[in-house]
Amino acid sequence: MFRPEDHPHRRYNPLLQQWVLVSPHRAKRPWQGRHETPDDTPKPPHDPQCYLCAGNTRINGERNPDYTGAYVFDNDFSALLPDTPATEHDNAQAHPLFCSQSVRGISRVVCFSPDHAKTLPQMDVRAITEVVKLWQQQAQELGERYVWVQIFENKGALMGCSNPHPHGQIWAGDFIPDLPARAAKAQACYFQTHQRPLLLDYAQEEAARRERVVAETAHWLAVVPYWAAWPFETLLLPKFAVRRITALNEAQTADLALALKHLTTRYDNLFRTAFPYSMGFHGAPFDGQEHPEWQLHAHFYPPLLRSATVRKFMVGYELLAEAQRDLTPEQAAARLAALPLRHYSEER
Amino acid sequence: MFRPEDHPHRRYNPLLQQWVLVSPHRAKRPWQGRHETPDDTPKPPHDPQCYLCAGNTRINGERNPDYTGAYVFDNDFSALLPDTPATEHDNAQAHPLFCSQSVRGISRVVCFSPDHAKTLPQMDVRAITEVVKLWQQQAQELGERYVWVQIFENKGALMGCSNPHPHGQIWAGDFIPDLPARAAKAQACYFQTHQRPLLLDYAQEEAARRERVVAETAHWLAVVPYWAAWPFETLLLPKFAVRRITALNEAQTADLALALKHLTTRYDNLFRTAFPYSMGFHGAPFDGQEHPEWQLHAHFYPPLLRSATVRKFMVGYELLAEAQRDLTPEQAAARLAALPLRHYSEER
Ligand SMILES: O=P(O)(O)O[C@H]1O[C@H](CO)[C@@H](O)[C@H](O)[C@H]1O
Ligand SMILES: O=P(O)(O)O[C@H]1O[C@H](CO)[C@@H](O)[C@H](O)[C@H]1O
Repeated sequence: MFRPEDHPHRRYNPLLQQWVLVSPHRAKRPWQGRHETPDDTPKPPHDPQCYLCAGNTRINGERNPDYTGAYVFDNDFSALLPDTPATEHDNAQAHPLFCSQSVRGISRVVCFSPDHAKTLPQMDVRAITEVVKLWQQQAQELGERYVWVQIFENKGALMGCSNPHPHGQIWAGDFIPDLPARAAKAQACYFQTHQRPLLLDYAQEEAARRERVVAETAHWLAVVPYWAAWPFETLLLPKFAVRRITALNEAQTADLALALKHLTTRYDNLFRTAFPYSMGFHGAPFDGQEHPEWQLHAHFYPPLLRSATVRKFMVGYELLAEAQRDLTPEQAAARLAALPLRHYSEER
Repeated sequence: MFRPEDHPHRRYNPLLQQWVLVSPHRAKRPWQGRHETPDDTPKPPHDPQCYLCAGNTRINGERNPDYTGAYVFDNDFSALLPDTPATEHDNAQAHPLFCSQSVRGISRVVCFSPDHAKTLPQMDVRAITEVVKLWQQQAQELGERYVWVQIFENKGALMGCSNPHPHGQIWAGDFIPDLPARAAKAQACYFQTHQRPLLLDYAQEEAARRERVVAETAHWLAVVPYWAAWPFETLLLPKFAVRRITALNEAQTADLALALKHLTTRYDNLFRTAFPYSMGFHGAPFDGQEHPEWQLHAHFYPPLLRSATVRKFMVGYELLAEAQRDLTPEQAAARLAALPLRHYSEER
């Protein structure tokens, strides 16, 4: 008889409308490949060499103010620029195999706090709430000019983060990027059939089944999604209908900060290391439409698999065929949920 | 006026029907992040510790024969198994947000040669031809049992390769994986409109434009595709109509080996290092259908960006919004095409 914890199977991601291959028996193979070097050296609260610390000078000569809370500034090397000229030919005229469009946008950097040493799980809920409020204010401001505001954090050198000072980024643009466009399509399609937001139904179902819950607060639920591709991937979901980060009320905002603290603390406690990941929010586009089908949510994509030094590689089969995972989402969730809510660095 | 080599824009990948963000101006930013350690230490032609070398014993106690050419065996830690029981419920009965299916398949390892030290570009064309013939023979055999036979190579520790002995893998299964399914859909759609295979039209257009050609032989063309996501990504295309690797004639087979040698030599010469990548072939599924819309092709996804030690990270924006690249595909192609066809290790 088929048992998901023993037998290879595929699961369907209804948000991206794609499959993931699950090979639970494969967790037993020995690892003889590359080992990562976690960077867990203690850091000072202020590093004179860091271009993100308060009062320091950045590469372009600008000096950071002596900021005290969360702080945002324009990225000195933006991937998107506000004044890109339009393309001469529009897509319809182009060769169908050589199709392009020029884009406009802006990139910003969000320092979570002046403290060079404190990552999200080490900050107190009040300080994390300030970060969430800065995200909201940025989404509000940039959403007036751009249809898509991508808030994200790359944490750890493993995830391409080039400065250990805790920070995230915001890339806003005048186009809906590929993956959110797919999530939008899936949610619209589900709403048409069921008259309810896909991710609200999903959160209710997960809260009832309780097989994949990693953290839960009054208003938020973090699960390893049924279709997770990364070993300890999570999806942070509101338990109420809400379309954009700008639409959260005071209580939901503060509670989001608490949920972020709980989730990232469990992540750090798993391998007793500053757990690397890329995370980011998806919400309804800023296109002036209602979007009753959309639910605000955050994805966390962490690469570690077995320990602080052994990661999952999304390579050959994954890049050419489909995503593949070893342990099941239920196993990953059980391991995370069992961890304390106190950060390992605060133990004594 | 808009200039693609200066201004941020998006390009459309007609094979996966997705977009990539190109930010050419961003190549100027300094890199302060992680540096990789390339493994260019000279290796012996036979390593007594290597479980892939001829005559050595593998982890499960089996002894490799004293093979002399390319050699294939079943993976000791397969992600797919031939005898997985069927799932009790089929998809139609399941909850639409909790959808899964059990799968059957097999994984194999292909050692390119007994020489522990020689990667593809360092092998002679005759020996590479033997590898291609083994791939063909495996596709033939496994294609009789499984609808999809994924031939691929993860090269380098950076790409999750856990043993430096030059080798690839084959994962065959009774389902068409996600990415080939998307490529199949796109090719079918194009064929219906144009009555010609998408990738045959594309190869002809690239051979005429010559802006992105990296290597060319009598029958094969390697280009940095117009929609490349990875900095030096390439697409290896036949210049003639052919659906599967099993359908190549003698001349096309030997010439594929030559094209592989040219392309991988230029890769190694770019940063004078064993250039890491994941590569693999896509061809028509083994489903007993004709598939006039399909063209056999190989994708190469190499992570390096600026040097042997600085890679591109596909992280936050890329995982949450869409793939992003710095230098343009035309710039990448020009750099690769300018390199000698003699491997740097053979210089004197
Ligand atoms: O070569 P291995 O050890 O089988 O494994 C490697 O390739 C596989 C297929 O792309 C990936 O799933 C693994 O993450 C990677 O480490
Ligand atoms: O933080 P940086 O230096 O802007 O860049 C990092 O995040 C970007 C957005 O995900 C990626 O495109 C880069 O590859 C990564 O190194």
